[in-house]
Amino acid sequence: MTIVMYDLVGADDRRFSPNCWRTRMALLHKGLEHEARPTRFEEIKSICDGDRKTIPTIEDGDKVVTDSLAIADYLEETYADRPSLFDGPVGRGLAAFVQNWTQTVVNPGVVGMVVADIHDNLVPSDQAYFRASREKLFGRALEEVQAGREDRLDSVRKSLTPLRATVSQQAFLGGDRPTYADYVAFAPFQWARSISDFRILADDDPVSAWFGRVLDLYDGAARRSPAYY
Amino acid sequence: MTIVMYDLVGADDRRFSPNCWRTRMALLHKGLEHEARPTRFEEIKSICDGDRKTIPTIEDGDKVVTDSLAIADYLEETYADRPSLFDGPVGRGLAAFVQNWTQTVVNPGVVGMVVADIHDNLVPSDQAYFRASREKLFGRALEEVQAGREDRLDSVRKSLTPLRATVSQQAFLGGDRPTYADYVAFAPFQWARSISDFRILADDDPVSAWFGRVLDLYDGAARRSPAYY
Repeated sequence: MTIVMYDLVGADDRRFSPNCWRTRMALLHKGLEHEARPTRFEEIKSICDGDRKTIPTIEDGDKVVTDSLAIADYLEETYADRPSLFDGPVGRGLAAFVQNWTQTVVNPGVVGMVVADIHDNLVPSDQAYFRASREKLFGRALEEVQAGREDRLDSVRKSLTPLRATVSQQAFLGGDRPTYADYVAFAPFQWARSISDFRILADDDPVSAWFGRVLDLYDGAARRSPAYY
Repeated sequence: MTIVMYDLVGADDRRFSPNCWRTRMALLHKGLEHEARPTRFEEIKSICDGDRKTIPTIEDGDKVVTDSLAIADYLEETYADRPSLFDGPVGRGLAAFVQNWTQTVVNPGVVGMVVADIHDNLVPSDQAYFRASREKLFGRALEEVQAGREDRLDSVRKSLTPLRATVSQQAFLGGDRPTYADYVAFAPFQWARSISDFRILADDDPVSAWFGRVLDLYDGAARRSPAYY
């Protein structure tokens, strides 16, 4: 049975949500048949039971699960015979650390560099909601948040030092095979690439090489998704 | 057979080296009989085969291993029937990420707060070597490096956000049981506690609660080691 994944979409079929990318990669990792159904912000309230506030949300038969980590846990438990996302409880525990690092260190740096570009790449009917909600969060116009991003590049790249050191020593965060922790750390860079032509990573950065390795997985599924580069 | 672990020591039997603490905790985790032999900087050149430049170094019968991660890998492989340090290859891969984060984010912040205190807590015959080598590294007097540490507290505490978020959600970095990744992240705080009365962590910080949980392990072995608090 095909799992339906509600996947945030911008204009031109751009799939940009980092949290949705975690789920998409988890479904590919598990080798589960799925449909990543394009969903606009304005449509979220109408999916499934009408009670969902955020995506990713998946529908697996009668089962509805929201939140990327809850979905990963659900898939790991339900499809235990498929390739493991965590490789056991310690891998699950440490993936939470990688997620916390990504959310508190990487994502804030990345969003400040692409938030106005996100707005510009949404369908027009989503733009007003996005601007209002994000400007309330930042307390400033999106264009002001994004301004001067070239001057912040060094500091954002420096913040990636732990990731860089690790993927210089081994192919993936979880060693020689990709696991959920890689998808979590991959997601903000896929987010940026899907929605903005501004290059956050230098070509010769080992993080770029690792990002390329994740893009290549599963017949290049993430690489083929509409993107600026 | 007792494993000999050469353990860096200051005055008053203070065991302060963070890398030695990783190894000490790994030996305790494995439940292996060991002697943490107090070793001054000036004595390192004379241990084992006389070729060792750093500690931790362990002697397990004829086998000599140097470097904390190499030792952890050796113990994991050699004593595979004992409790696992990594819980498999993904746990090992992600432990490397935690180590890289600790070394590039936590350790630099901590050392800047205690480096002159380390000097003052060494045996006198080690002090000249320590001052010369570390002042060359920093390009400044140890006392200058440490000065103004109160002003850096907020920024160092903020850098712990990913650790704080994780140990607020689960007991240990690796989930509900401690593993090697916990010992690596624990080590800089045990280092500070062993050698300085300057409190880096606030009492009500969830990181303090986690640190206390690690101090309590193995009958409080780490807690009983000479320390300022």
